[in-house]
Amino acid sequence: MSVVTTKERLLETGLGLIHDRGYHATGIQDILAAAGVPRGSFYHYFPGKEAFCLAIIDRYAEQGYRRLDGYLGASESAPLQRMHRFFEDTRAFYAAGKCRRGCLLGNLGQELADVSDACRRRVNGHLESWTRRFAQCLREAQDAGELAAGVDPDDYAAVLLNSWEGALLRMKLMRSVEPLDAFTRLYFDSVLAS
Amino acid sequence: MSVVTTKERLLETGLGLIHDRGYHATGIQDILAAAGVPRGSFYHYFPGKEAFCLAIIDRYAEQGYRRLDGYLGASESAPLQRMHRFFEDTRAFYAAGKCRRGCLLGNLGQELADVSDACRRRVNGHLESWTRRFAQCLREAQDAGELAAGVDPDDYAAVLLNSWEGALLRMKLMRSVEPLDAFTRLYFDSVLAS
Repeated sequence: MSVVTTKERLLETGLGLIHDRGYHATGIQDILAAAGVPRGSFYHYFPGKEAFCLAIIDRYAEQGYRRLDGYLGASESAPLQRMHRFFEDTRAFYAAGKCRRGCLLGNLGQELADVSDACRRRVNGHLESWTRRFAQCLREAQDAGELAAGVDPDDYAAVLLNSWEGALLRMKLMRSVEPLDAFTRLYFDSVLAS
Repeated sequence: MSVVTTKERLLETGLGLIHDRGYHATGIQDILAAAGVPRGSFYHYFPGKEAFCLAIIDRYAEQGYRRLDGYLGASESAPLQRMHRFFEDTRAFYAAGKCRRGCLLGNLGQELADVSDACRRRVNGHLESWTRRFAQCLREAQDAGELAAGVDPDDYAAVLLNSWEGALLRMKLMRSVEPLDAFTRLYFDSVLAS
């Protein structure tokens, strides 16, 4: 007997389908069929598709925080190296996934920013949290003398994350990790290294 | 009597709606109603929604090339300044539009990369053309001694464009041009200026 609850199954299945196809192209019916859950159960847990999407955004973001914090908290390495390793391993993850799907936050942000204000705010809030984590790491790099004191950690962290999202979009379009490699070369061999 | 052809009206109306709402959220019926065109006329010009979308992608990209080429060909200014001005004026354009819509190529690329191979290739081809234009301008900046000889113009042009797409996504999410300003500060005051 499975210990996965119906709500968990709905969220995990829905996250996969929406990550594959996008929000509008995925119907609640598709999620119910794939999860093997009756319609009534869905509405028992979620008032509607938008509320379900918000729960999926949180779930995906929290998985991401756990992963990112594992890298950025690895205090046996220098701060910039921790960040660099996060991007390198994430590149390997996307390469293994044939450069599909990309970042769910970027995908839903792009698709829903002008359509659902609740989703727009939720995605933006999570990207802000990611930015704060990168900024903290850049501050630690400055304290360690790895990064020039003149760099504004908040500014650089924001551009770094947004540029990574842009690189992931291009990766999906090219079906190649080359945009991720170009990102890493420019930022870690040049911009942050100087 | 209007000189705008039915095909033109369909394309212009469809481009506006799809730019506002996205591909899946815009039905052919919505486009017909907004353009005041009967269904048969649509299918006279386009075999289906995907073919229509390809025509919209081309139309938007070609408007963009004309604009970009106007800036990058302004030989009375130094090459980096032409590029900088393009980004500054585009920022003003998005600010006037209340930070909505963003770049249609980025939007459709994000929504359709894993769904329509034809749209994926078309968007990617146009972004490649944009990248080549930026790379050419960076080469001119090197020739003029404005940009360090060690910079790889193709690499930098690709990261520049992808980072701009990421900044536009974030602009939509924040409803603020701050991500565009952070992009410009980092690239034009620091990365390309050093």
